[in-house]
Amino acid sequence: MTDPNFAFTLEATSGMARLGRVETSRGGFDTPMFMPVGTLGTVKSLTPQDLEDVGAEIILGNTYHLYLRPGMGVMEQFGGLHRFMDWSGPILTDSGGFQFYSLSDLAKFDDDGVDFRSHIDGSKHRFTPERVVEIQATIGSTIMMQLDQCPALPATPKTLEQAVKRSTDWALRSLAVADRAPGALFAIGQGGTDVSLRIAHIEELSAHAFDGIALGGLAVGEAPEDMYDTLEAVTPSMPADRPRYLMGVGRPEDLVEAIGRGIDMFDCVMPTRNARKGSVFTRTGKLNLRNAGHRHDEAPLDPSCGCLACRRFSRAYLHHLFRNKELLGPRLATLHNLTYYLDLVRDARAAIRRGEYDTFRRSCHAGWTGGSHG
Amino acid sequence: MTDPNFAFTLEATSGMARLGRVETSRGGFDTPMFMPVGTLGTVKSLTPQDLEDVGAEIILGNTYHLYLRPGMGVMEQFGGLHRFMDWSGPILTDSGGFQFYSLSDLAKFDDDGVDFRSHIDGSKHRFTPERVVEIQATIGSTIMMQLDQCPALPATPKTLEQAVKRSTDWALRSLAVADRAPGALFAIGQGGTDVSLRIAHIEELSAHAFDGIALGGLAVGEAPEDMYDTLEAVTPSMPADRPRYLMGVGRPEDLVEAIGRGIDMFDCVMPTRNARKGSVFTRTGKLNLRNAGHRHDEAPLDPSCGCLACRRFSRAYLHHLFRNKELLGPRLATLHNLTYYLDLVRDARAAIRRGEYDTFRRSCHAGWTGGSHG
Repeated sequence: MTDPNFAFTLEATSGMARLGRVETSRGGFDTPMFMPVGTLGTVKSLTPQDLEDVGAEIILGNTYHLYLRPGMGVMEQFGGLHRFMDWSGPILTDSGGFQFYSLSDLAKFDDDGVDFRSHIDGSKHRFTPERVVEIQATIGSTIMMQLDQCPALPATPKTLEQAVKRSTDWALRSLAVADRAPGALFAIGQGGTDVSLRIAHIEELSAHAFDGIALGGLAVGEAPEDMYDTLEAVTPSMPADRPRYLMGVGRPEDLVEAIGRGIDMFDCVMPTRNARKGSVFTRTGKLNLRNAGHRHDEAPLDPSCGCLACRRFSRAYLHHLFRNKELLGPRLATLHNLTYYLDLVRDARAAIRRGEYDTFRRSCHAGWTGGSHG
Repeated sequence: MTDPNFAFTLEATSGMARLGRVETSRGGFDTPMFMPVGTLGTVKSLTPQDLEDVGAEIILGNTYHLYLRPGMGVMEQFGGLHRFMDWSGPILTDSGGFQFYSLSDLAKFDDDGVDFRSHIDGSKHRFTPERVVEIQATIGSTIMMQLDQCPALPATPKTLEQAVKRSTDWALRSLAVADRAPGALFAIGQGGTDVSLRIAHIEELSAHAFDGIALGGLAVGEAPEDMYDTLEAVTPSMPADRPRYLMGVGRPEDLVEAIGRGIDMFDCVMPTRNARKGSVFTRTGKLNLRNAGHRHDEAPLDPSCGCLACRRFSRAYLHHLFRNKELLGPRLATLHNLTYYLDLVRDARAAIRRGEYDTFRRSCHAGWTGGSHG
C-alpha cells in the first residue's frame, strides 16, 4: 500500500453488503460512505461547519478544476486545499479523467497522457499520470485517484479494451511516483458493462499496492439495471481487504443497490446539483419545490429528517424561496439533500451491522415508490 | 401611542447622538440600530440563526413584495411572516411607498391611494393607507410604516408640498385604523432637502400618537452633504421621546454622520446587495473581492472582525469563490458586511454611552480614509 496512514478494516457483511472502516492521515470514516462533491474547494453554498453538521466525514475535490482555479500557485502558497477551504477531514481528489470524458471536445488522449484546453479560457495544458500525482500532492489530497480514460457507453469493444489497457498502464505509472505524494492512491477499473473485461482489469490492478480500487466508467449512459448487473458480477473479484469506490454514482436507489452488491464509497453531484434546482430527496420520494402544489404546504420536506431545513422551515417557505430565486433556497435544499444521502448510508451501515441489509434495501424502495412525487 | 407593547427610552446623549432602547411585543433592541433588509421574508442567503450570530435584533420586510409573494393567503395561513420565515424577533415592514418611487412607471398616485401593476406579472392592484395597515397586520409586522409618497430629488417645491400634504393625510388615515393591527405605527416625514417644509411636516406628524417618526425621501439622489445638513437642521424638531428612523440609509459613513445628528434607526440593502457583488466593508475601507490583487492574500477581510468569514477564511479564498461564482461567496460576504454594520452601531452606542461620540466618528473616518481600497 502506498500510504502508511491509510487502512481499511472490513467489520461486517450482510449478503454482499459490507460494513467497513477507513483510516486516513486526516481521520477515519465508516463505510458505506457518501462523499459530497466540492469540485472547486467548496461544496456549493455550504461552510465546512455545515458539512460537519450534515454528517460529512470525507469530501471530494477535483484535480482538473483546482489545477485551473485557484491554480497551483495558490495551492502551494496555502500548503494545499485543506487550509485554503478550512476543511480538516479527508479529501479525495478525482484525477481529471472524468472531466476529459465530459468535456471530451477539449481533450486529446495519447498513450502518454492528455492534451487539453481549459474550459474557461481555452489555454493549452497537458496531464500525464505522473503530473496528476504531483498536482494532487500539491493539493494535499488525502486519497488520490490515478489519471484514467473513461469512455462513454455504449462503446465498441476496441474502445473499451484500449481504455482498459491505457488505464492499467497509467495506474502503474501513478503507483511508481506515488511516494512523491503523502496521500493514498486508488486505481480505477474500466471496462464498461463488459464483465469479463472488467474482471480482468480489476484482477490486474489488484495485484499491485493500490490502497483502494475504484470502478470508473459506470453511470455514463447505460441503464441502471445494466450497472447493477455489472456490479454484481464484478465485485466478487475485487479484493475484500481494500475499499471499493463506485465513481460518480448516483441516485439514492443506485446507492442502495450498489451497497447491496458490495460497494463501499460513493460520490455524486446529484444531491447538491438537484438541490440548487429545487429538487429534494425524501424517504417518500423526490419533491420539486418549484411546483405550485407546495405553496401552502406547512409540512417539512421530510418529517423523518433532522436537518436544519426540516427542523425549522415548511415546504411552503422553501417553495417561496425557489419561486423568488432566493439564495437561501439552494442552501437549505443542499443541506437537506446531503443530510438525506448521509443518513441513507448511515442507515445502510446500521442495517449491515444488524445483518438485515436486504430488509433495509426493500424498505427504502417501498418508501420511495409509496410516497408522493411532487 | 398605538401599541401598548411599544416603548422608547432615551438613555444617554453625546452631542446630538442618542443612545436609546426600543421595546416591542417581540423583544427589544438598543439604538442606534441597523436593520438588515429581508425584502421577501429572507435576508438574502442567511438563516435566522445567522442573523442572530451577526447581532441582528430587528429585521425589515417589505409590504409591497410580501403582498405579491408569497401573498396574503400564505401569510394568513401561517399567521404572519414570523412563523413563515422562523424569525421570532421584531420585524419592521416598509409600506410600499418607496417601491412606488423606485418602480414609478408602474404606479399612479391619487389623493386616496395608489394604483399599481405588479413588477412580476403586470397584474393590477390598489393600495390605500387603510389597506396597507391591514396588509401589515396580516404580515404580523412588529413596526408598521404608513403608506407615503416619496418624490425623487431634485423635486419642484410643488411636488414636495404635494407629497408632504398627501403623506400627512395618509399618516392620519393609517393612525385611524391602527387599532386593527397589533404592531406599532411609524409616520414618515417628507420634504426633500427643504428644511422648513420638513420641520413643518415633522411637527404636524409629531402632534399625533405615532410610535416613531421616520424620515423618508432622503438618499434619493441628493449629495450626502445635503442630506447631513438637512438632518442637522431637522432632528432638533423631532420628538425626543420617540425613535427616529432614517429610511434606506446608507453607507457606513452615512450611518456615522446621521447618528451624530440624532438618528436612531437605519435600514439599507447596501451591506447585503454589495456583498453579493463581492464588495465588502472593512475598518480600513471597502474591498472588491473580485480584484485579482486578492488572489494570494492570506489576510482575513478585516482582522478586527469576528464574523465567520473573517475567523476562518482568507481574502484569497473569498476571491476564489467570487471568481468562480460560488454560492458560498455571497453568503460569507453577506455575513461579514452585516457583522460590520452591526458592529458599527454597537460601537457607536458604546461611544455615546462614554460621551465620546465625536471622537468615535472621527476615528471611523480616519480608518476608512487611511486604509486600502481594494
